Amino acid sequence: MAGARRPGTGISDLTAKRVSVYLRCLEDLQADGVTTVSSQALAEKFGLNSAQIRKDLACFGEFGTRGVGYNVSRLKEHLVRELGIDRGRNVVIVGAGNLGMALADYQGFNEHGFHIVALADIDDEKIGRSSRSGIPVLAFDAMPQAVRANSVEIGIVAVPSPAAQQTYDAFADAGLNAILNFAPTQLRTRPGVKVKSVDLRINLESLSFYLKNVEDGA
Amino acid sequence: MAGARRPGTGISDLTAKRVSVYLRCLEDLQADGVTTVSSQALAEKFGLNSAQIRKDLACFGEFGTRGVGYNVSRLKEHLVRELGIDRGRNVVIVGAGNLGMALADYQGFNEHGFHIVALADIDDEKIGRSSRSGIPVLAFDAMPQAVRANSVEIGIVAVPSPAAQQTYDAFADAGLNAILNFAPTQLRTRPGVKVKSVDLRINLESLSFYLKNVEDGA
Repeated sequence: MAGARRPGTGISDLTAKRVSVYLRCLEDLQADGVTTVSSQALAEKFGLNSAQIRKDLACFGEFGTRGVGYNVSRLKEHLVRELGIDRGRNVVIVGAGNLGMALADYQGFNEHGFHIVALADIDDEKIGRSSRSGIPVLAFDAMPQAVRANSVEIGIVAVPSPAAQQTYDAFADAGLNAILNFAPTQLRTRPGVKVKSVDLRINLESLSFYLKNVEDGA
Repeated sequence: MAGARRPGTGISDLTAKRVSVYLRCLEDLQADGVTTVSSQALAEKFGLNSAQIRKDLACFGEFGTRGVGYNVSRLKEHLVRELGIDRGRNVVIVGAGNLGMALADYQGFNEHGFHIVALADIDDEKIGRSSRSGIPVLAFDAMPQAVRANSVEIGIVAVPSPAAQQTYDAFADAGLNAILNFAPTQLRTRPGVKVKSVDLRINLESLSFYLKNVEDGA
């Protein structure tokens, strides 16, 4: 049933995250020349849960052959399709400060299904320049037109916290339904306009937690 | 038993991540003037699992009062201690490009238990400058001395992928045991030197997955 696949009903954000992790693992295996892998081997090599792997992959239909496992290249292609990145997605970034510039040139995006079309900023000093890799910086007011002209689907908020809500609203007004927010602030969201907030601090907290437990154990 | 709290045995990375999420929720509640909260209310307000909350918090000792719930401020202080950020942790960043500069000035770090002491780079053009908020850029070779002089505990890798391994090794040689890696590459790690890699692409993939499911459901 198609209904079971709709956002919020069937496959969750958590599943999406696990699918991304499986994809990274398969990319690693492929780079190492591995052609087939069992859920058990995948779980052991990357510290995952084999029952969870089988459950997740079963949601997408049957791929594994009992006793042989999954064909790495076929499964990888399938996961790329499931994540919707087989056709590429255009992205625009608002905020051409250090963070926006870093994201515009981030290898991990442009080599893997995402295409940063433009940056936009309100600062006249920045407008008309471009990132190291050549992504142009447009005027903030020109963003909606760039969205339409390039069929942009995802907006990235890379402005300081006080400007984040305004940027979200401008993205929503421009017709975007998927927003990635790097400002460490809570946004008031609109129905149907999904936000994913990146919490960079959580990674440092996790390392601090590790250090504290080493200290306590010592 | 202390042994149950050691890394890799008792409380996992996943728990640390959930504790960080609880901390964010409590900060939000405190900002709204809420003084007590039940695990049930916490779960409902933030879309979490109440049984998981009770289980996680029980690991840290008993805080909730049956029928009343948790004292928001006390629980928050306790989680801050559990995460080991009650005393502040000094951090150094290698790579003073756009990403390093953005991280050095990232509000989310400096206001919440982390203190960026310095950036370091091999580029003579960058050495001697400072970030917008005044974090100095040192020579790469001066990093180990800065680590010792400032009791730095965490190193951030903000260099391009080809230089990431060398940066990790330099951090480990300088005596750091906790590394946050922003380069989209796999690092060869040493025992006892924990790496957390930030995969920025996973957030875009999750949004793509959302968009694809909306398309498929339409």
